[in-house]
Amino acid sequence: MPADLVRPWLAEQARRGEYRVTPVPFSLLRGWHFEEDGGNLRHESGRFFSVEGLHVTADGLPPGGRRQPIIVQPEVGLLGIVAREIDGVLHFLMQAKMEPGNINSFQLSPTVQATRSNFTGVHRGRRIPFLDLFLERGRSRVLVDVLQSEQADWFLAKRNRNMIVEIDEDVETGEEFRWLTLGQLLRLLRLDNVVNMDSRSVLACLPTAGAGPRAADGPDDTGVLRSFHDPAAPSVHGMSEILSWLTGVRSVRELDQRRVPLREVEEDGWLFSGTEIGHRSGRRFRVIGADVAASNREVGSWTQPMIQPQVPGLMALLVKRIRGTLHALVQARVDVGHLNVAELAPTVHCRPADHTGPGREPFPPFLADVLTAPAERFRYDGVQSEEGGRFYHAENRYAVVEAPDDFPEELPPDYAWLTFAQLTELLAHGNYLNVELRTLVVCAHTLY
Amino acid sequence: MPADLVRPWLAEQARRGEYRVTPVPFSLLRGWHFEEDGGNLRHESGRFFSVEGLHVTADGLPPGGRRQPIIVQPEVGLLGIVAREIDGVLHFLMQAKMEPGNINSFQLSPTVQATRSNFTGVHRGRRIPFLDLFLERGRSRVLVDVLQSEQADWFLAKRNRNMIVEIDEDVETGEEFRWLTLGQLLRLLRLDNVVNMDSRSVLACLPTAGAGPRAADGPDDTGVLRSFHDPAAPSVHGMSEILSWLTGVRSVRELDQRRVPLREVEEDGWLFSGTEIGHRSGRRFRVIGADVAASNREVGSWTQPMIQPQVPGLMALLVKRIRGTLHALVQARVDVGHLNVAELAPTVHCRPADHTGPGREPFPPFLADVLTAPAERFRYDGVQSEEGGRFYHAENRYAVVEAPDDFPEELPPDYAWLTFAQLTELLAHGNYLNVELRTLVVCAHTLY
Repeated sequence: MPADLVRPWLAEQARRGEYRVTPVPFSLLRGWHFEEDGGNLRHESGRFFSVEGLHVTADGLPPGGRRQPIIVQPEVGLLGIVAREIDGVLHFLMQAKMEPGNINSFQLSPTVQATRSNFTGVHRGRRIPFLDLFLERGRSRVLVDVLQSEQADWFLAKRNRNMIVEIDEDVETGEEFRWLTLGQLLRLLRLDNVVNMDSRSVLACLPTAGAGPRAADGPDDTGVLRSFHDPAAPSVHGMSEILSWLTGVRSVRELDQRRVPLREVEEDGWLFSGTEIGHRSGRRFRVIGADVAASNREVGSWTQPMIQPQVPGLMALLVKRIRGTLHALVQARVDVGHLNVAELAPTVHCRPADHTGPGREPFPPFLADVLTAPAERFRYDGVQSEEGGRFYHAENRYAVVEAPDDFPEELPPDYAWLTFAQLTELLAHGNYLNVELRTLVVCAHTLY
Repeated sequence: MPADLVRPWLAEQARRGEYRVTPVPFSLLRGWHFEEDGGNLRHESGRFFSVEGLHVTADGLPPGGRRQPIIVQPEVGLLGIVAREIDGVLHFLMQAKMEPGNINSFQLSPTVQATRSNFTGVHRGRRIPFLDLFLERGRSRVLVDVLQSEQADWFLAKRNRNMIVEIDEDVETGEEFRWLTLGQLLRLLRLDNVVNMDSRSVLACLPTAGAGPRAADGPDDTGVLRSFHDPAAPSVHGMSEILSWLTGVRSVRELDQRRVPLREVEEDGWLFSGTEIGHRSGRRFRVIGADVAASNREVGSWTQPMIQPQVPGLMALLVKRIRGTLHALVQARVDVGHLNVAELAPTVHCRPADHTGPGREPFPPFLADVLTAPAERFRYDGVQSEEGGRFYHAENRYAVVEAPDDFPEELPPDYAWLTFAQLTELLAHGNYLNVELRTLVVCAHTLY
């Protein structure tokens, strides 16, 4: 399918698959209840996920630590894309999928997007197409298979299995599936809210070393292709130096996480009403209830708790050509829900509105550089949605911004310049790059 | 120092540094108390570690899960060895160190063995020699720097920073330090309880690719050198296949961990007395109190809780030459305290006594193969101590055992054959190999 027909096709899917998402009071959630003992919000099956309290002690927080609501979802889900060579070009089988939190309902999702509850039938859903291609070895070649983290301010140590498998056989696909090339997907990433978070996360993990046929097409003035496709390209740091730097941050920074009854978060300023749990500051996020009625999801209609951020975030990656290779400036960031203390994050990973107005927090490093950068330095600039299955209308602005030539070489200790090949090499392992940085890695592929 | 003088020197250290370790009732622990609210055993400073309850839900456990005591120590410690080339051979600066849990008190420990409390002065200890060489970049070259896990049946997600740094400068060393070569350390590993767990863990992480000068000394009939030093040696699986296999186990197996008040473990058969917390089955382990008086530790005398296993464990690695390369049979093992569901563990990782007598559990895979293997198939067989700072008289038998030629090729799904170069490559990252397998990796270096 030509890329410019994808958005009309998604709109058509939305017309065919009727759906309706309505915020509702918690009392109207079916099968969900606040536990008597402590008030955690759970499903009667004991599965899916729960909203609990998280008590975190960490550097930079008050001595007693701080409590907040958090989504606990110990089950690992599967995000899988089927790939196949068609006419000599690798194509990816993408699905038009409605997620209740999406602003525009239908986005391009991986071929399979499933929780373990889906496999085992707790969801009582219909059979998931193509799931077998991921679970049964021998029917496909594994190109990507790694557990990656998700939003660490809203999830406690959540991970999903990111997979790409390549097949040779013909498979029948329904109307909600389309084969698209990487080039087409990168063009679609230039549009707002078309390629969903799960797709971006999985595509970011695709190994790029030695790939990059376009390298021969012309001179590489920007060092971008080298940065992506040549692990031996000149770089500021070697890989063992990078791992040592991150090990240092993970050792020195403190992060003690304790699951506590949800009710305890009241003591840190969270207010409970019949329709939401929100922070009295008006910042952070709200826990709400949603009633979802859709004809073409695994289950026709359901209710669930969701998290709604109060304001959009800004995820920006400063890039700079150093020693002939494009480098990205990343930070080793500590977030409350991290499995392993710190992960690499975009240069700027914040909600700008939190840094303005009464009660604002100080600007994080490099936010001012991004906000004041002239338009021509924005090499990528788009709005993308976060996981629409858990987050309601959660959008972030993603930007790849060229740093000026006189950008200071000295960095704060938790920041470092890495090439994209180095970032991609780290993506063979879990919990090195956070989900926001993974989105920016795949967005940066649009630079060449 | 010649290797055969090391044990006499350790004995001399023991005579010089007087010490005494006495189990005492919990009421005699100074600064430690059971919290009123829930009974967690904590230090008044809020630091060091605590003994809490852990409620685990996992496959294979009863539906409601199971509770047990666990050590919670969110601070990352540093285990660091200083290396230096002397007369053309790399030497490691080892320390004779008393640990209260050691059966023979003094063992060879890393140059530096420090908790973050040591750095920040909570321990009120003396300055730690050589610590600066690890924390200040520029004074040394980093050979190893990675967070590795420790005993996952007794620790909740505990990790220590394993480091080796190489220096060129002369450093003054006290009487408790000795420079030893890797060859000497491997000879000392042939002795019981001489090289402590922290040293074994750190040395296991030493990259071996391309090393192995002894390769030229003669024909390699066993495929051992190739297995250690050649990442491209013929192997059963490629690295991405191995990572995919482990990702699969981590996705499919369930492990939900929740810290609960220590008192709750009573409901799962743990009995509290004034002197210990033990399981009514007489199996598992006991939490005890210890009074330690020593002249040459950072602090002269102290008391602390410790964990004492009821019976020793057996950690055995089956090895086999496949396609000309020695392979080790490892399992992807789920343990209650794992940070990331599963880690690679020895072929056999158990306490054999748990599988005999009334109330015994069934034999795990391959235990019978190890117990019935003829003596000549034991290529390494020794008793080594676990962390003497937390565990009282915790010894395990470590064995590297050659599998017979007719060993079945079909394996249970959680088992796989890896070369030692592949295991070493994984050791550049944390939480892939558990601490018992790391000991066996370094023991296997004695095979050539």
